[in-house]
Amino acid sequence: MTSTGAGVGPVERQRADARRNYERILAVAAEEVAVQGADASLEQIARVAGVGSATVRRHFPTRRALLEAVSQQRIETLCARAGELGGRDGDGRGALLEWLGEVLAYCVTARGLATALSYDADHDPVGGNSCAAALIEAGEPLLRSAAREGAVAPQVTVEDLITLTVGLALATEHHPEPTARAETLLGLAVAGISPDRV
Amino acid sequence: MTSTGAGVGPVERQRADARRNYERILAVAAEEVAVQGADASLEQIARVAGVGSATVRRHFPTRRALLEAVSQQRIETLCARAGELGGRDGDGRGALLEWLGEVLAYCVTARGLATALSYDADHDPVGGNSCAAALIEAGEPLLRSAAREGAVAPQVTVEDLITLTVGLALATEHHPEPTARAETLLGLAVAGISPDRV
Repeated sequence: MTSTGAGVGPVERQRADARRNYERILAVAAEEVAVQGADASLEQIARVAGVGSATVRRHFPTRRALLEAVSQQRIETLCARAGELGGRDGDGRGALLEWLGEVLAYCVTARGLATALSYDADHDPVGGNSCAAALIEAGEPLLRSAAREGAVAPQVTVEDLITLTVGLALATEHHPEPTARAETLLGLAVAGISPDRV
Repeated sequence: MTSTGAGVGPVERQRADARRNYERILAVAAEEVAVQGADASLEQIARVAGVGSATVRRHFPTRRALLEAVSQQRIETLCARAGELGGRDGDGRGALLEWLGEVLAYCVTARGLATALSYDADHDPVGGNSCAAALIEAGEPLLRSAAREGAVAPQVTVEDLITLTVGLALATEHHPEPTARAETLLGLAVAGISPDRV
């Protein structure tokens, strides 16, 4: 519940303002990072969000703090999305592939993010994407549904799919159209390079 | 033809010695880089090759020169291998997949090599592996044979396959058993995540 309306004191109003600023900065930062990568200009983010640089720094004291918040929010959205898609009946395969496509889009736009955040590779099952654990958990029901339909081989894991997706984003990082290129390659891996006689 | 045997002058003998040293250093360097990555110790390479550090430096003035030579030799071997496998009749699919597996093994053991060499991404179709152009050319006949058998969809390109392979090597770089992990994922992409109804 947000405190708004008549009878609200100055402290509550300040808190509501701060919360709105935080959310606006985060939304703008997500867009800038998607376009510019981890080097996105903090000044530009402040300008587009319509706040001063000091306000950005108050909410996110370091670039790392801002990048972590952006990444965290994107991952939460993807996890929630897995839940929504899993609620659909009858097309487990379509739901899994739609979700994988959204994970791929995130990985491509988040280019440089993993490196900038410098997560500990030893605690990272897919090497360079620390939020993989949350995604893997969220994707499990989608994979199980698709496997129950016989659309995915039973030995395939969500970690396989996430690692493959991360790899496609990394390999296409320097391509002029990374999203389109990575989508083509994901389509190839979904259909199989040579699925017969395997 | 190598100049050896009686009647050979001191200059020829020196040249033959230099050539042998060069080849021995390169062979040892290839093994060390496969195990240690691009940070392989030059002193260790000299020691195992049975030469002094000065001899290593005479042949390879910089670490980059040594890494380039190692990479070049591995790529030449892979290109020659594509020619050999393409000469086999009747199993174009098997030949293509065997070659892709060897390219993957190279990409995994060459970890860090592409970054250390800092190739210009603008001139690199697969982002981070400058030798891709030679591999793509060498792989064309293998892909064409497999496609003629109907084992690979006609729109698939060798660049697709190489980029996918590079991605798998990148995504598994920090895994405790990168080769086995990358092979599992290549197997998944060959068979298809979900090949039906695509």
